[in-house]
Amino acid sequence: MGSEGYAIYREIWEGPAAYRETLEALGNLDDLAANILKRYRAIIACSCGSSHHAGLALCYAASRLAGLTAYAVQASEYPAYAHHHVGSEHLLVAISQSGETGDTIRAARMAREKGVRVLAITGGAGSSLAGLADHVLPVGGGAERAVPATKSFVAQLAACYAFASALSRAAGGQDLVQELQAQPEMLQETLSRSESFAREYAESLAAVRSLFILGYGPSFIAALEASLKLKETCGIHAEAYSIWEFRHGPISLLDGERPCIMIVPPRPGDSLEAFEKVSATARGAGARVLLVSHSPLRMDVSETLTIPETRGEFATTLEVAPFQLLAYYTALRRGLDPDRPRLLTKVVR
Amino acid sequence: MGSEGYAIYREIWEGPAAYRETLEALGNLDDLAANILKRYRAIIACSCGSSHHAGLALCYAASRLAGLTAYAVQASEYPAYAHHHVGSEHLLVAISQSGETGDTIRAARMAREKGVRVLAITGGAGSSLAGLADHVLPVGGGAERAVPATKSFVAQLAACYAFASALSRAAGGQDLVQELQAQPEMLQETLSRSESFAREYAESLAAVRSLFILGYGPSFIAALEASLKLKETCGIHAEAYSIWEFRHGPISLLDGERPCIMIVPPRPGDSLEAFEKVSATARGAGARVLLVSHSPLRMDVSETLTIPETRGEFATTLEVAPFQLLAYYTALRRGLDPDRPRLLTKVVR
Repeated sequence: MGSEGYAIYREIWEGPAAYRETLEALGNLDDLAANILKRYRAIIACSCGSSHHAGLALCYAASRLAGLTAYAVQASEYPAYAHHHVGSEHLLVAISQSGETGDTIRAARMAREKGVRVLAITGGAGSSLAGLADHVLPVGGGAERAVPATKSFVAQLAACYAFASALSRAAGGQDLVQELQAQPEMLQETLSRSESFAREYAESLAAVRSLFILGYGPSFIAALEASLKLKETCGIHAEAYSIWEFRHGPISLLDGERPCIMIVPPRPGDSLEAFEKVSATARGAGARVLLVSHSPLRMDVSETLTIPETRGEFATTLEVAPFQLLAYYTALRRGLDPDRPRLLTKVVR
Repeated sequence: MGSEGYAIYREIWEGPAAYRETLEALGNLDDLAANILKRYRAIIACSCGSSHHAGLALCYAASRLAGLTAYAVQASEYPAYAHHHVGSEHLLVAISQSGETGDTIRAARMAREKGVRVLAITGGAGSSLAGLADHVLPVGGGAERAVPATKSFVAQLAACYAFASALSRAAGGQDLVQELQAQPEMLQETLSRSESFAREYAESLAAVRSLFILGYGPSFIAALEASLKLKETCGIHAEAYSIWEFRHGPISLLDGERPCIMIVPPRPGDSLEAFEKVSATARGAGARVLLVSHSPLRMDVSETLTIPETRGEFATTLEVAPFQLLAYYTALRRGLDPDRPRLLTKVVR
C-alpha cells in the first residue's frame, strides 16, 4: 500500500491546517485571560498521553510568557497527589481531544466536586469533559482516524499557545499574535524539509530496540512527544530526557545499539554546552547521534536535520513534526500498521 | 570477589541506619513547619537524579498529609521553566546529597537572586548548597562510596518524610512520628525478604535490554527510582510509568523480550483494577510480569515478592529496597562493576 493509503500520513500533513483552524475557532481570548490572571494563583494542567505533553507545553509557555505559576500533572496521578492540595486558587486545565478520556474526566469531576474551576481544551464540543467544564477552548482540525495522535496534538498545541499568548498580553507582556499566525506555514516548511530525511533515517532504526531523545525547555516537551510516537507507532523503546538530567545516570546506557537523538532548541544558550558534552560522550561510546536543530551547528554527529528558526516557546510544534513522519516510515519499514498499533485503542476510557 | 567486597552492597544494608540517623539529626521540625505553612503558598522541589525522586516523594507526602501545594521540577529544567514564575510566595526546596550538584546549585542561586527563599536538604553540611540556603535540613548516613545512590536516597527520603510529617502536624493533620520511627526496622525486614529473591530474579534479567516498572502514587516514585537504579547500575533500559498512564501508548511495547514489573501500593483501591488489566494484557502479549506488593494478591504473574505493609505515603522506601539489591545482583551477573557504572561520576558538577 502506498503512503497515501494510511490515515496517519494524511493527518500529519493536515497539521498546518489543524493549527490554523484552531486559531480561528478560538477567537479572542483576552477577556478570559484577564479574568484568569485576576482570579487564580496557579493553573494545573491535567491530562494523559500526548494531551499531557500539550499541557506541559502550556505550562512552559504560560510560565515563560506571563510569569504564571503553572505545572502539569498526569491525570492518572491526580487522585493520588494533586487532588489533596487543589483549591479555589487553582484553575484545573483538562486537555482531551475526544473529551472522553477516562482518567482526565475523573480528575476534572473530582476537582469540580471540591469547588475547583475547570477549563477544558477539547475537540469534543458535546463531550463529557466539555459538559462538566466551566470554560471550554475548542480545538479544530476535525476527526483523527489513526490511533497515534498527530494533527490533534498540533491542534492542541495551537490552542495552548494561543491561550498562553493571551495570558502574556493580559500580564502586560509581549503580543505574539503575528508570530503565532506564522506557525502553520513554518510547520508546512518543516514537514517538507523532514519528509525525505525521515524516510531515509527510518532505515537506520529498522533493528533498534531502544534509544534516547534529549531536549531542553520546550524542546524537552518535543522529546517527550517524539518518544511516545516512536513507542506506540513502531515498537521502539524511546525515552526522553532533559539534556542535563541525562547525565545523572541514563547516559551510562549509551552504546553502539542505542542511538541518541538530540533536539537543540532555538538560541540554545548555555544548554549548547550540555548537548556538546553528551554528544562527545555518546560518540565515544560508539552510539549514533542524530542532531535536530533550528540552525546548522558544528558538532560531531552521525546525522543532522535543520528545521526553521522560531520563537523558543512555540518550537515544540516544529520539533515534533519530523518525528511524526519518522514514526510513520519506521512502522512501514518494520511491517507494522502505523494507523493501528498493537494493544492500543483511540480513546482510553 | 564476594558480595561483601562491594561498597554498594554494604551501603544498601546501611539504609536502615541511615534512615534512623537522619531522623535523629533532624530533631524537632515543628517550628520550621509552622513558619513555612504561614509564610508560603507553595513549595517547589528542585533537584537531579535520585534527589529529584526524593523531591517528588516530598511533594506527594506534603500534598497528601498537609494539603500543601507542592510540585517538583528537575533542576536542569528550572532556568527554562519554573524560574519564570517563582516568587516570594514560593519556597524552593533543593535536595543534593553532596550539596555540590551543579544544576541544583545553579537553580538555587538563580532563585535566591530573585528573592526566593531556599531550603536545602543535604548531607553536605559545609557545602556550596548549604552555604547559600536560608534553611538547611541535615541528612545523615555518612559518606557513600558507590556511584549509584542507595543509602543516601533512603536518608533523603527520611528527611523528606520527617519534614512532611511536621507539616502535617502544623496543618492540624495526623501525628505520624511513631510510624516514621518504625520505618528503619521495616526497611531491614524488607531487605531481608528481598535478598534471595533479588539474587534469583537477577538471572532472568541477564539478557534483558529494556523493561517497564509501573506504580501508582508514592509507588510510582519508587518505580522512577528503581528504573534509574537498573539503568545506571546494570545497563538495562528501564522506564517507569504510572499504571493508568501506561495504557496511553507505552503498553504497545510489551512482548516476550520486555518484562513488566508492577509495584502495587499498600491498600491500592481503584488502582488495583489497572494493575490487573495491564497484567492481563502483558501476559497475553507474552511478557513476564513481576508483582511487588505489600500483601499477597491473586494475579496471573510470573514472579511475586511480598514486602511489609506500611502507610502509603512512606511506602517508597520499602518499595525501592528490593530494586537496590536487584540492580546490584544483576550488575554482578552481567560482569559489571556495581560501584562504578560506565560513563558516570559520583557528583555531577
